[in-house]
Amino acid sequence: MQFGFQIGTKVLFGKGCLITNKALLNKFGKKALVVTGKGSAKASGALDDVEEILKEYKIEYSIYDKVENNPSLENVAEGGKIARELNVDFIIGIGGGSPLDASKAVAILAANDIEPLELYKNVFDNKPLPIIAIPTTAGTGSEVTPYSILTRNDMKTKMSFGNEDTFPKVAFIDAAYTESMSYETTVNTAVDALSHAMEGFLSRRSTPVSDALAIEAIKIFGECAEALIDNNIDFSVREKLLYVSMLGGMVISHTGTTIIHGLGYSLTYFKDIPHGKANGLFMREYLKYNYNAVNEKINKVLELFKVSTIDEFGDIIDKMLKNDINLSSEEIQLYASLTMKQRSTSYNAREVAEGDLIDILEKTFLSPN
Amino acid sequence: MQFGFQIGTKVLFGKGCLITNKALLNKFGKKALVVTGKGSAKASGALDDVEEILKEYKIEYSIYDKVENNPSLENVAEGGKIARELNVDFIIGIGGGSPLDASKAVAILAANDIEPLELYKNVFDNKPLPIIAIPTTAGTGSEVTPYSILTRNDMKTKMSFGNEDTFPKVAFIDAAYTESMSYETTVNTAVDALSHAMEGFLSRRSTPVSDALAIEAIKIFGECAEALIDNNIDFSVREKLLYVSMLGGMVISHTGTTIIHGLGYSLTYFKDIPHGKANGLFMREYLKYNYNAVNEKINKVLELFKVSTIDEFGDIIDKMLKNDINLSSEEIQLYASLTMKQRSTSYNAREVAEGDLIDILEKTFLSPN
Repeated sequence: MQFGFQIGTKVLFGKGCLITNKALLNKFGKKALVVTGKGSAKASGALDDVEEILKEYKIEYSIYDKVENNPSLENVAEGGKIARELNVDFIIGIGGGSPLDASKAVAILAANDIEPLELYKNVFDNKPLPIIAIPTTAGTGSEVTPYSILTRNDMKTKMSFGNEDTFPKVAFIDAAYTESMSYETTVNTAVDALSHAMEGFLSRRSTPVSDALAIEAIKIFGECAEALIDNNIDFSVREKLLYVSMLGGMVISHTGTTIIHGLGYSLTYFKDIPHGKANGLFMREYLKYNYNAVNEKINKVLELFKVSTIDEFGDIIDKMLKNDINLSSEEIQLYASLTMKQRSTSYNAREVAEGDLIDILEKTFLSPN
Repeated sequence: MQFGFQIGTKVLFGKGCLITNKALLNKFGKKALVVTGKGSAKASGALDDVEEILKEYKIEYSIYDKVENNPSLENVAEGGKIARELNVDFIIGIGGGSPLDASKAVAILAANDIEPLELYKNVFDNKPLPIIAIPTTAGTGSEVTPYSILTRNDMKTKMSFGNEDTFPKVAFIDAAYTESMSYETTVNTAVDALSHAMEGFLSRRSTPVSDALAIEAIKIFGECAEALIDNNIDFSVREKLLYVSMLGGMVISHTGTTIIHGLGYSLTYFKDIPHGKANGLFMREYLKYNYNAVNEKINKVLELFKVSTIDEFGDIIDKMLKNDINLSSEEIQLYASLTMKQRSTSYNAREVAEGDLIDILEKTFLSPN
């Protein structure tokens, strides 16, 4: 038995947790930069709550609300420059995965005047500023991971960095902030969370503790599957999904992801398919591909979903996500080749050859129907 | 769903983890105090390994090896004074629960020249020195908790303190360092770990995450029960027990303990019964007492142990621990009364009255056999 464990984030989970624990915001300094996008931070009410608390504690703040969907290096460079110039003490990320991941990059760039490409060196002269994370979607888990996943236009994909100093110091995780999500975003992000738990569970880097958390996550997702399919998503389902998302984040903090994420990045980069949906579409073939390598664990996934075959599992995911994508042979070749370059591909249970990825892509996107 | 989660410790688990990750010791300063007892740190080989690494990195160090079994306030006050006078940068605790708990107190007292009784205020002007924890028993879980449990001679019991700054910064958890334990210590400490997981699982403060970890811990302990009874404890069993111990620590970091620990402290204080054994003896009556309040969870415990009744569970524990204690009515009255004063008693699943504790004590120690 050989493993590491580290979650550098203090988690407060539950309705009203930000207000109840607002004094925590007053521990990180007198000047903050709020990093967010245009949408969910406002719609969710989280930004209003944060502003109210910052005013109450007389903490100066600015808002950088230009985080793009799937933020680029150029995007976070702008946020980092603003943080550096304002000389803020800490960063508050509010939103889905994009703003939360961006806030980590901004926290590093605020403390280190480096080229954004140097983020990928993952070693910095100065510690990143403390990060507070407030998720408004239930999928990324970024609030409890050290990872920042940014779009690399030079590489035509998304790639991650992060080290033990980029764990958010505090995560306020309140399902009330996820209620403004559309049905599609709810489903897509939920499937992302499932993907984290499942890829982590089946990863070569899985640990006994990450497995215990992954099993809990997959089980709870299974309890929500019918509500997701039926668009019958009440507050208790939203809480469960947010809990699954947090667990998924804790899992991948130890395991990273594998080929589902690697393949999904291409669908997002080239076809603008939302990240969670991009992952989910690969799940059926991913499980079939890996079955012989980790059959006991995959049987456990099926048991947790209360199904007996991978196809039954795949059918559940298909009811959540519409596969309306057609890929050409050239696209399939390109995506497979880009996925082979992802470090995470080497952590997949079964050793991956480019032809295997082509096969998965063809079965998923070149099927007769 | 309302909960918090925080484990402020970076864990390295596995054979050779200290040597493999020795560079971590070089991150905390140039002067260390090693806090330990007379026995296990040396016998286990852990102290030798630590000294070798400190010499390699030219880190000055002193050794305070006077930690008592069940250390008193007076004991840690001496260690704290030495640390303060030596002006060390960090503390390395090596040993069972006693040295590890003492190292937390020493880390606080090194940075704060206060009366030891003020440790229980749990708020300190200066942050405690960083603590590195290396367990040599598999029971305490102290390597991943913020708690320091010291003997209060003024209160005639043991009481705990600790806050988020007293989590060890790094825990090196290697079953090789637990191989020098006697059979009795192995069993007693293992039962302590089980108690952490079980009390945490049944506590009013249990959380979804602590429950997932507790279930894993109880299941793995169950896998080791036969080996413990048969004194057939090979390295893989030692690793499992150390893993259970770590999980138990993570559980009680969120839940604290309940009446088993409260009652056990009296047996240890007045009768010198080892801590784990003192806990284990109460388990049968504890489960019966709480059954109606948390029957589903207790059924889960029995299922994880692969038994169908509480008495079958109790019989397994009885095969591990010899109940050779007789208590007078006066002693029972005193122990019940002292346990009522423990804050942890209020976290027990069933609301506890003093008469209930008397009943548990009588059934355990005044039975006809």
